[in-house]
Formats: sequence, structure tokens, C-alpha cells
Amino acid sequence: MKNLEVVQDELINGNNFFLRNVSIDNVIFGYHQKELKVLLLRPKGLTKWTVCGGYIRKTEPIDEAAKRIARERTGLVDLYLKQFKAFGNPDRTKDAAISINLIGETEGIKADNLAWMLDYFVSLGYYTLTEFDQVKPSGEFNSEECQWWNIQKLPPLLFDHKLIITEALKSLKLDINHFPIGYELLPEKFTLPEITSLYETILEKKLDDRNFAKKLLATGIVTKLNERRNIGPHRSPFLYVFNKEKYDEALRYGITLAL
Amino acid sequence: MKNLEVVQDELINGNNFFLRNVSIDNVIFGYHQKELKVLLLRPKGLTKWTVCGGYIRKTEPIDEAAKRIARERTGLVDLYLKQFKAFGNPDRTKDAAISINLIGETEGIKADNLAWMLDYFVSLGYYTLTEFDQVKPSGEFNSEECQWWNIQKLPPLLFDHKLIITEALKSLKLDINHFPIGYELLPEKFTLPEITSLYETILEKKLDDRNFAKKLLATGIVTKLNERRNIGPHRSPFLYVFNKEKYDEALRYGITLAL
Repeated sequence: MKNLEVVQDELINGNNFFLRNVSIDNVIFGYHQKELKVLLLRPKGLTKWTVCGGYIRKTEPIDEAAKRIARERTGLVDLYLKQFKAFGNPDRTKDAAISINLIGETEGIKADNLAWMLDYFVSLGYYTLTEFDQVKPSGEFNSEECQWWNIQKLPPLLFDHKLIITEALKSLKLDINHFPIGYELLPEKFTLPEITSLYETILEKKLDDRNFAKKLLATGIVTKLNERRNIGPHRSPFLYVFNKEKYDEALRYGITLAL
Repeated sequence: MKNLEVVQDELINGNNFFLRNVSIDNVIFGYHQKELKVLLLRPKGLTKWTVCGGYIRKTEPIDEAAKRIARERTGLVDLYLKQFKAFGNPDRTKDAAISINLIGETEGIKADNLAWMLDYFVSLGYYTLTEFDQVKPSGEFNSEECQWWNIQKLPPLLFDHKLIITEALKSLKLDINHFPIGYELLPEKFTLPEITSLYETILEKKLDDRNFAKKLLATGIVTKLNERRNIGPHRSPFLYVFNKEKYDEALRYGITLAL
């Protein structure tokens, strides 16, 4: 957590520290046992929620800025953040004045000093997918709350953040046709129904089990073990592990799943 | 083409007209008879080439800016420009000073007045795919040349424009698994070998003819006609047309080709 004086200085003199007219919004998806959630923050004094956003330092590559913002605002480190789309039109943050007044009030800063935030910002959207049961989000100085929300039951969102989440999910659904997922989300040894559920949850649709298993195995990213898990009388499905070498190769060069 | 005085005013007082720290680069791909090309400009006095880039007006949504920039710099209208990735690090335009001096010289403007261009710009990458035989690119006031280059034999490129083209092509190759192409690129009636060639050219790989045809027909975006084209003794392949309704639906909701 940063020193409060530094934070205040950056808030008041944002144009000295940050790029103008371009910012970042991270959509942090969390998966756990057939549920897909998204991590949202509620700024102090506001009733609306936001994704995890922030500004880019003048010395910083955009991908590093995305990581730093996630770390500073939620305490999450080492996230794999994927850039998916930029959002830009002059009206996208038109209700910014209200939130800026509130930031000013709660931080004891004159709203005039925060006027730089009212500018037209093009926001670079990033998303990530993580295991939400592992994460105890902390929020940062200016947030009153930071919590996971089920993707189906989102609270009221600030600015165009509803659109940003919708577009992030659309990208994630397309991207899992071409890039492997699951290494950080499933136990080391997992069953075919478990990995199928993961894909079904993200895609929000039922998959044909056998067909999915066939496609998945054809990519080589999972390996069947000569080992079963006992889950009930007459039910002991085979266990699988990720082939980490093939998995990393697939991350780099892509796969074709066609789900 | 814009009035020269307006152009000069915008060049000198860029910060009054355009967003700071964020710009646009359009990668314009052209297809014609098994060749994939990209449209590049060579700014006056420079030996290096650039994709079709420019700045975003303070009143303009980013997608409209991309279209305007394409129109102003190449004369091309009604392009379907797809945003694919933003490029941003403080070093990406580090050789900008040289080109700015040259713009200053050729336009009779002091380099100091163009210093705003030396700032760190995050560039929003867009691409489009068009029929290059239909296009006679004109270039704009500040370009010495504007021409199509074969994707395999690119000239020296300014800034990170080589990377931008590489990433645009990577996105195009992924995207054609999910979105239909060809309507503007093929004749109204075409043969299976013709549409297969289009996909092969973009993917830069040989496809299994039958398998590709099966997948393509399964999407419903093409319809077989009861009509053949005579291309030689004993060779008269069936003709196909796009089913425009299904094609537009696929553009909106996506398809699965898995090539």
C-alpha cells in the first residue's frame, strides 16, 4: 500500500505522473466450482461499482501498468492480464463529475484539483481469469468495498463498465477456443467432468461431453493417468493432469478447440 | 482533401485538436488472386514506411477516428476496421524526432512546434481486409508515396510498425475462424478452389480441400448453385454464392470454422 501523501500528490497532480486521455480497466474473472464471478470495487461514497481501473505512468509500458493497477487496487499479484479491446468515446465517463466530487470529499481534496480526471479517457480493457477461492481481495485506500460478484447478478456499474465486462466475457469465450485454460483453476489431478464444467461455465452452455473430451485430448494439453477417483458406488472416473510442456506451447502458439 | 491552412494549424497546435498520448494505426490488408498485401505510406523525406496512422479528435469516438484517418490518408471510404490490440511503451516511437524534423522541413514548420508529437503515444491498432485491385490509393498531403506491399516482402518500417503488422496478421488469422470473410473479396459467383485459396493465402498454409469445404458449408454462409464454370476440358467446377442473410448473422454472432 502506498504512502498517503504520495497518493494525494498523484491525485492532485495527475497530469504530471500519468498519460493523458488513456487509462486501463482490468476485468478480473474468478472461477470456482462451476461459478464465474467478477471482482468489483465500490469507490468511497458511491453506490455504483467499477472494474479495477487506473492510470498509466509516463514511464510505463501499458502491460506493466495493468499489472501494477491490479496489484495496487486489489492486492493480487502475478496475474496474466490479456488486453482485449479499447473503449473510447467522448461520453463514456460522462457521469464522472459526481464520483470526482465524492473522491474529493472523502480525501479532503478540492474537486477542481481533480478536474484532469474529467477529460476524455480512452480505456484499454484487460481481462484475467483466476481461482476466486484463493483470493481474499483487499481493495485500496479509495475503495469502500472490493468483492466478487456472480456474472449473472451484477450490481449497478459506473460509466461504461457494464459494456466492458460484457465485451471481456465475449473475448474470453472466443479466446478459450485458441488458448488453454485451467492450469491455475483446477486441482493438480482432475476428472473429465471437472474440466468440462470449467469450459461450460465460461461458455454459458452445455457441451457434448464426448466430443469435448475428444477435442481436448487431441490438443495434447491433458494426459490421462492410470488412476481413478472414487466418488461413489460404481463411480470412479479416471484422473487427468495437464501436460505442462504442451500447455505452455499452446499458450504461445495457440490451439484449435472449436467449441 | 483538407485545406492546407487547417492542416498546418492542426499540425502546430495538435494538443488543441487531438487527444494526447493516444493515437490510431490502421493496418489495411488487400487481397487479390492469392496475394495478400498491406497498404503503406512513406512520409515526405523519409526512407521508412508506415501503416496508415493518425490522431483522435477530442470530440470523436475511436472507431470513427479510425475511419476518418483511413479516408483522409488513403482516400478509402466505408472500410470495416476492426480494433485488434493497443501498443504502448515509452520507447515505441523513439526515432520520432527524425521524422518530425523532416515533417517540419517539408511543411515549413519549426520542429519545436511539432514537439507534441514526440510524446509517449499509446496506439490503438485496427485492421481491415479489402480487394486491392479495386483500390487506387492516393496518399495525403504529407506522404510522398502510398502503395501496396506484399506481406512477405515489406520495406523498412518506422517505429514499431513491423510489430503492428505482425500482430494484425495474427489477429486476422484467428478471427477468420470466427467471422466470415470473402463477401467484398470474391466475385459474386465463385468456385470452392477460389474461396479455399482466399483462406489459404491469409492463413499462409495449405488446407485440406474437402475438410475445409465441409466446414464452410456447415456454417450455411455459402450456397451451392446448380451452375458450373467452364475452365478447361473436363474441368467445370460448381459455382457458389454467399447467403447474405446467414453471412450477416455470422458477422454479428460468430461462426466456428476451426481451420
